[in-house]
Amino acid sequence: MAIFSKETHFEMTSVSNSYYPDEPTAPKVVTDTIPGPKSQEAIRDLEGVFDSRAAYFVADYDKSIGNYIADVDGNMYLDMYAQIASIALGYNNPELIKAATSSEMVRALVNRPALGNFPGCDLREILARLLRLAPAGQDKVWSGLSGSDANELAFKAAFIYYRSKKRGYDKEFSAEELSSVMGNSAPGSPQLAVLSFKSAFHGRLFASGSATCSKPIHKLDFPSFPWPHADYPSYEYPLNDHTEVNRKEDDRCLAIVEEIIKSWHVPIAALIIEPIQSEGGDHHASSYFLQRLRDITLEHGVVYIIDEVQTGVGATGKFWCHEWANIQPPCDMVTFSKKFQSAGYFFHDPLFVPNKPYRQFNTWCGDPAHMIIAGAIGQEVIDKKLPDQCARVGDYLYTKLDALRAQYPHLMQRLRGRHRGTFIAWDLPDTETRDHMLKKLKLAGCNVGGCAERSVRLRPTLAFEEKHADVFVAALEHVLTEL
Amino acid sequence: MAIFSKETHFEMTSVSNSYYPDEPTAPKVVTDTIPGPKSQEAIRDLEGVFDSRAAYFVADYDKSIGNYIADVDGNMYLDMYAQIASIALGYNNPELIKAATSSEMVRALVNRPALGNFPGCDLREILARLLRLAPAGQDKVWSGLSGSDANELAFKAAFIYYRSKKRGYDKEFSAEELSSVMGNSAPGSPQLAVLSFKSAFHGRLFASGSATCSKPIHKLDFPSFPWPHADYPSYEYPLNDHTEVNRKEDDRCLAIVEEIIKSWHVPIAALIIEPIQSEGGDHHASSYFLQRLRDITLEHGVVYIIDEVQTGVGATGKFWCHEWANIQPPCDMVTFSKKFQSAGYFFHDPLFVPNKPYRQFNTWCGDPAHMIIAGAIGQEVIDKKLPDQCARVGDYLYTKLDALRAQYPHLMQRLRGRHRGTFIAWDLPDTETRDHMLKKLKLAGCNVGGCAERSVRLRPTLAFEEKHADVFVAALEHVLTEL
Repeated sequence: MAIFSKETHFEMTSVSNSYYPDEPTAPKVVTDTIPGPKSQEAIRDLEGVFDSRAAYFVADYDKSIGNYIADVDGNMYLDMYAQIASIALGYNNPELIKAATSSEMVRALVNRPALGNFPGCDLREILARLLRLAPAGQDKVWSGLSGSDANELAFKAAFIYYRSKKRGYDKEFSAEELSSVMGNSAPGSPQLAVLSFKSAFHGRLFASGSATCSKPIHKLDFPSFPWPHADYPSYEYPLNDHTEVNRKEDDRCLAIVEEIIKSWHVPIAALIIEPIQSEGGDHHASSYFLQRLRDITLEHGVVYIIDEVQTGVGATGKFWCHEWANIQPPCDMVTFSKKFQSAGYFFHDPLFVPNKPYRQFNTWCGDPAHMIIAGAIGQEVIDKKLPDQCARVGDYLYTKLDALRAQYPHLMQRLRGRHRGTFIAWDLPDTETRDHMLKKLKLAGCNVGGCAERSVRLRPTLAFEEKHADVFVAALEHVLTEL
Repeated sequence: MAIFSKETHFEMTSVSNSYYPDEPTAPKVVTDTIPGPKSQEAIRDLEGVFDSRAAYFVADYDKSIGNYIADVDGNMYLDMYAQIASIALGYNNPELIKAATSSEMVRALVNRPALGNFPGCDLREILARLLRLAPAGQDKVWSGLSGSDANELAFKAAFIYYRSKKRGYDKEFSAEELSSVMGNSAPGSPQLAVLSFKSAFHGRLFASGSATCSKPIHKLDFPSFPWPHADYPSYEYPLNDHTEVNRKEDDRCLAIVEEIIKSWHVPIAALIIEPIQSEGGDHHASSYFLQRLRDITLEHGVVYIIDEVQTGVGATGKFWCHEWANIQPPCDMVTFSKKFQSAGYFFHDPLFVPNKPYRQFNTWCGDPAHMIIAGAIGQEVIDKKLPDQCARVGDYLYTKLDALRAQYPHLMQRLRGRHRGTFIAWDLPDTETRDHMLKKLKLAGCNVGGCAERSVRLRPTLAFEEKHADVFVAALEHVLTEL
């Protein structure tokens, strides 16, 4: 029997549950192992046709609700991982069910349009719901299908922009460009690079994968573009106690960025950065760092792309994490996916629309079905002021975790995410201990993810409240005493 | 007033309409220009936030039905283009509406899972519906989000397979591989190539774009991998009158393929081919050619990928076009998207599952919502024997077009697609005349697409019947007399 049986309930510090009145008050774990026997059987059944070796367990989404995810063995976990940080509002959200059963959704699913050639008359309205959520300074959008896709579409826009600036926006292509490009050669297909950062995660296709630098397993055996990775600042925590050394760290990394831009063997057309490197270890970049990147990219004519695929949509206490930095002038593009359900990039400069049609184009040009869900998510985030709630609950959670850190400094190293909503992480001494903690947390009814080699990252939904934080902290405390 | 007013009806040779009883009996064009004034206004409105320069018109999907697409100006076109060949069953199909309003669809949309980590208990059943439609010889699937994505995921599987075969499937990576890959360098990130064909279209991301070789506008200003393109056979038509010269053309191109595999400056890990190059000009490959590619790829240890993104799902008279060639042993992977609505690749060899988890992986690993639609499409295609219908209607249409070709040989050059269902195309003398024909056809109520520089391609839905063929042939005849 696992640690927390059906009968085990944590004490609650708050009782109201406005968002999900039918949510459980505590997790429930009824199997000795996770995945439990029924999950294991279902995974074996999948294995023959679909690679499922990475499955944590097999979920029962009908029985999942709000912050709680059910599995086929009857376990019910408090979900602090939320589909790799991609569920914004919790499971079976009533407003999303309304959107999913709307007539516009049926239309979008059964008549999926080629948006570039045959936009529907509802597209403007569907887009308007996304655009009203655009980051400060951005007012246009191009849509894609996933985080990798969003970043690669942004790269395409950046490369076209970069070359158009050199060539002249309205200038025709040369005969040499037109012929060489068909052989994948310069000048039509120029050697240009995107600069990203060590530990970055921007996706797993070939260009996004070249910008990704988190783990070898993401990249091994694939050809890649010879693109550089600068150092991402690695701060001392708590931040307030180390302002001077952390500023030095920022400047050290900024110097590397500038050096690469000046000296890389092919021109750097764009720079892409996550305001918090998530998959790569929950490294936070300071506002100073993000602003200085704007200064440097402007100075050198480099396109500045901020990747908000994981950080976007409210969990950090702002709708978009980089809004904490109030970068001026705004960055050139902001990519999104995951919690937004719809993917793509926001931008503001009309020169990022290529000079001819069919340059940034594909069959579907996005997916109205998921855009409709995105619009409904955005409406809820606004109506319920969820970034504010994340800020409040995040501070509440951080304070409790900080107290645990004082008790267990060895097992809660470099606690990160103060005043960044529920975007909280810490390090364990090594991978083995981290994995052990995650396993124990699961048996204690909390589904939590790791990142990098030895970090734990918290990625609850925006419907995460103080009472959920209490459940998690109690479970964590229990696990810490056992480790 | 356009050519065909509300009052103009074509004569019908058949009257039954089992699939869409409420479908119009003829197109209706009520505007002098296409796009009409309301479409133009809606496009202008979109332009400010979403690049819509490629829009043909703004559609009203509520009013569209079966083979007919409505626009906001009140025009109703017979749709022979069908969202760039991506609508299988026609607009507002009743079976798809059932699927779109099912409880499993709501679940898939509001609780979109990270399929690799947290598959739902319904995933096996949803996948089973796809797998029963797998091409002959294939029984496993990995899912993605678009044609580009499907091809790049297949490339990843091919590169991993290729390197694993050299290294030993169960062998660990070397320290040098693990470190070099983080710098995008060999040996961890090896220089490997995918061989494709001139005029090929495999997508518009960076690796798929490197394999694409249809038009400069698809590729200009993007960095690419230095991957080669062999000649795709270009036959004399009608095929039956030119068997000898066409066989020679096959052999000429096969020799080029073999030469590239032997001599390219980096190893060729995979070969990808469309059984009919669609975007690139509706070039058909013979069964002999596709089989010989199997022989050659086996001999040289090259992975053989068939791209059925546009050709798949019945329109050619087989569910998968390459099934006409009965390739033995089967190719290694078959990629799909478009009419299938769901995207990904089918395969059969378990060694195409990487030796470790998280190598072929991403957040969503596909999209159950569109898989559910794919399953419903497949069920209809089977129940209604739609590939057989396409074969029958295609032959009917081809015969009529062949008669027109005899009358207008200059305007119907190289008529292609005999016995390939409704996958029919022909050439005009030049781009200008082709574009003029497409414009006239639109004003005659038929929405038709072009491909390559001077081809017209027909891509109706699978619900296309003899009566629709009659409407189209009458419109075409009218246009031909005017050109």
